[in-house]
Amino acid sequence: MSICSQYFPEEPKAPVVATQEHPSVKSKVGIASLGKVFDSRGVYFVADYQKSNGNYIADVDGNVYLDVYAQIASIPLGYNNPVLHEVAQSDKMIRAIIDRPALGNFPGKDAEEIISEILKVAPKGQDKVWSALSGADANELAFKATFFWYQAQKRGYNTEFSSEEVSSVMHNQAPGSPELAILSFERAFHGRLFASGSTTCSKPIHKLDMPAFKWPKAQFPSYKYPLDANVEANKKEDARCLAIVEELFKTWSVPIAGVLVEPIQSEGGDNHASAEFFQGLRDITLKHGALLIMDEVQTGVGATGKMWGHEHFNLSPPPDLVTFSKKFQSAGYFFHDPEIVPNFAYRQFNTWCGDPARMILAGAIGQEIVKHDLSSQAARVGAYLFKKLEAVQSKYPEYMRDLRGKDRATFIAWSLKDAAARNKFLVDMKSVGVNIGGCADDSVRLRPTLVFEEKHADILVAAIEKVLSGY
Amino acid sequence: MSICSQYFPEEPKAPVVATQEHPSVKSKVGIASLGKVFDSRGVYFVADYQKSNGNYIADVDGNVYLDVYAQIASIPLGYNNPVLHEVAQSDKMIRAIIDRPALGNFPGKDAEEIISEILKVAPKGQDKVWSALSGADANELAFKATFFWYQAQKRGYNTEFSSEEVSSVMHNQAPGSPELAILSFERAFHGRLFASGSTTCSKPIHKLDMPAFKWPKAQFPSYKYPLDANVEANKKEDARCLAIVEELFKTWSVPIAGVLVEPIQSEGGDNHASAEFFQGLRDITLKHGALLIMDEVQTGVGATGKMWGHEHFNLSPPPDLVTFSKKFQSAGYFFHDPEIVPNFAYRQFNTWCGDPARMILAGAIGQEIVKHDLSSQAARVGAYLFKKLEAVQSKYPEYMRDLRGKDRATFIAWSLKDAAARNKFLVDMKSVGVNIGGCADDSVRLRPTLVFEEKHADILVAAIEKVLSGY
Repeated sequence: MSICSQYFPEEPKAPVVATQEHPSVKSKVGIASLGKVFDSRGVYFVADYQKSNGNYIADVDGNVYLDVYAQIASIPLGYNNPVLHEVAQSDKMIRAIIDRPALGNFPGKDAEEIISEILKVAPKGQDKVWSALSGADANELAFKATFFWYQAQKRGYNTEFSSEEVSSVMHNQAPGSPELAILSFERAFHGRLFASGSTTCSKPIHKLDMPAFKWPKAQFPSYKYPLDANVEANKKEDARCLAIVEELFKTWSVPIAGVLVEPIQSEGGDNHASAEFFQGLRDITLKHGALLIMDEVQTGVGATGKMWGHEHFNLSPPPDLVTFSKKFQSAGYFFHDPEIVPNFAYRQFNTWCGDPARMILAGAIGQEIVKHDLSSQAARVGAYLFKKLEAVQSKYPEYMRDLRGKDRATFIAWSLKDAAARNKFLVDMKSVGVNIGGCADDSVRLRPTLVFEEKHADILVAAIEKVLSGY
Repeated sequence: MSICSQYFPEEPKAPVVATQEHPSVKSKVGIASLGKVFDSRGVYFVADYQKSNGNYIADVDGNVYLDVYAQIASIPLGYNNPVLHEVAQSDKMIRAIIDRPALGNFPGKDAEEIISEILKVAPKGQDKVWSALSGADANELAFKATFFWYQAQKRGYNTEFSSEEVSSVMHNQAPGSPELAILSFERAFHGRLFASGSTTCSKPIHKLDMPAFKWPKAQFPSYKYPLDANVEANKKEDARCLAIVEELFKTWSVPIAGVLVEPIQSEGGDNHASAEFFQGLRDITLKHGALLIMDEVQTGVGATGKMWGHEHFNLSPPPDLVTFSKKFQSAGYFFHDPEIVPNFAYRQFNTWCGDPARMILAGAIGQEIVKHDLSSQAARVGAYLFKKLEAVQSKYPEYMRDLRGKDRATFIAWSLKDAAARNKFLVDMKSVGVNIGGCADDSVRLRPTLVFEEKHADILVAAIEKVLSGY
């Protein structure tokens, strides 16, 4: 029996389309009512999580959708997973919820065990972790670690701060508040707080009206598809983009302490780059004494057919920091260099230092992925799905441009001709019972759970064909 | 029977001091072992939360401390509170844990109820809430709301962004990324991310080596104690500090969009200011078209004898944004002006938009506080305790300078002559069975739970006397 069937004996066999409109009557009432106390303008529909099961999400109007969006890529093991249900009822979880520790000062005796579970699925070469609360938080804490490390390299790891640093920092002035930068890429998404927002560059709406650090943006490769027919052109594109990074290191007005990059630019359009490109970044950071931060918030935790997306690239040496969130339901960063632990206590610190309740869940999720080899399953199902989508593409090339994500499990995307066509497609898919999401302005991204199997792929492809055949 | 006895029939009658050193053997082993995977240099002791109960926290060496620090002011209703235990086991909580929604896109049908519970204890005049994940996150989201609002005032609430804004923002340049500031105060603490860090000004260690926004710092009043003997001098101090704020509005190199202030500067030393000072800030922000943000991360949720610390000031009109975290176990901000909801969707947005599991807990905490009027109880117990501490102060004036927090419930602090004396006192208190924290360099702060009663105050005062009598 497949793992999905084991977890979810009651999983629906197919979507239920109960209403003509999406959102329908009850969802609309719910959205309006919720809107009185909370910004509900982004709500697609009001969900009924009690009735959601496995790969299917139910709404309050009786629709049951096959969910290939999964809470913006963040449900790992399906809705109402029985193993997580058990974890949620455990004594350890209950205590983590009601006796939330200030983890940096008063960890419980199970803290080490909780953290070690997460480390069991750390990327190769990483043996330490620091915990956070969201992807943006994880990235910003990784920036802090990067800046601390960068300055420690200059002044000596154990050197005390100068009196000038200690006084100037209270006025937000150098040298205590140094002028340093994180380099990121056009079309990248790394979060929406102020420093993470300064590295985000996918859509203006994410950051308009927010003051920003004047940090540099390099260009991320824009490949021609299909990849195997465009090898030379794409190689040139890698070289062009790496040269820009190199140039920015040499010319940017303030020193660049770290390079931040997604293994696949997700929110920004599922833009892929080669192992050679990433190794090039690794080499440039080493050459210039900067750190390499891999943002695995969306690509991590099995989604690309390996536990961590960057493991497809065999980077040597491994990245310095790897941030995570979403499918782990818990956030933070992995690292291995002991000097990424700040030289003095209380520098990387805050009241909660993460949430043990969510960390317990992350450990359990990691365990299940390893136990059932769900990364490999995602790779297998993704290969099956990709082939079927190639067939659809050859029938409807207008509506499935630049199909991408081959050999990246179910982390698959394609483009339509423009935003209007893409948005219509997303809405139309609801009318055939599929909840599906977009990325960039014109693209569709698949982000199913790790218990998405061939039978679900068949339903998805049939639904896509049904919609496209009506165009 | 008192509410504490009702909740905790098994609460210890007194601390247990089982070891000479704190931390002792097992804690030290645990700290070293935890340190291999996590930065454990800030750990006081390894706690045994299973054995912790009510106002008492146990460590792994058999010590049981009366806890007047409460996870850096963030345990609201005592350890292993039975009501929260029930909430943690509820179906609603279990689903919130295992089916974590992307709240802005796919809220569950109970989302409105969960949010409304939190709104039931909103500060007077606030009828909307936006959720976050930590105090720093809450403050930064409040900054975003402030900057969005400020720019909307200039361009018109429903006006589209200009093409220049849309293109410049992708390069982190004005006008899309405008040069705007949040004004905060010297000795303030508002978090340790990059924008919140730029408003924090309590200790250099919180922000050294982090790039910062060049935002202004005004001066927060430094009162002479006891307050009733220094009325005139303190009034002058208010006027002096307000004049600085006014001056910064007129002279700062970039426009100030908001003023951020704690009702009592907590981390920075329990620095108090008068209702008149805060009303002055309110008036200045109105005059200059800026928002007033009250950071209630530490002062909120009953701790000062009212649900919200700023309710002591009767501000008119009420503050524009009130941020919360800690004792609510959930974070976010309250507001009332509909124009603080951004003009377009997806501006104040992120994957999770808070954590329903923690929001359910916040609602339950609020309910219990109202049901048992725990703010009033804190006021009553605080008055009792303050009087006793005044008596201690008259015996040991050297070790209890500037006793402060009268009429602010158990939100009490005092200073010693320097950091060394303060640090020694904190350690010595452990040897008589009390877990107690500091603020600023030279001060002691009391932050017990809301179920701290007269009997606990007696134990605390006796312990303090025991320590001081040995000096």
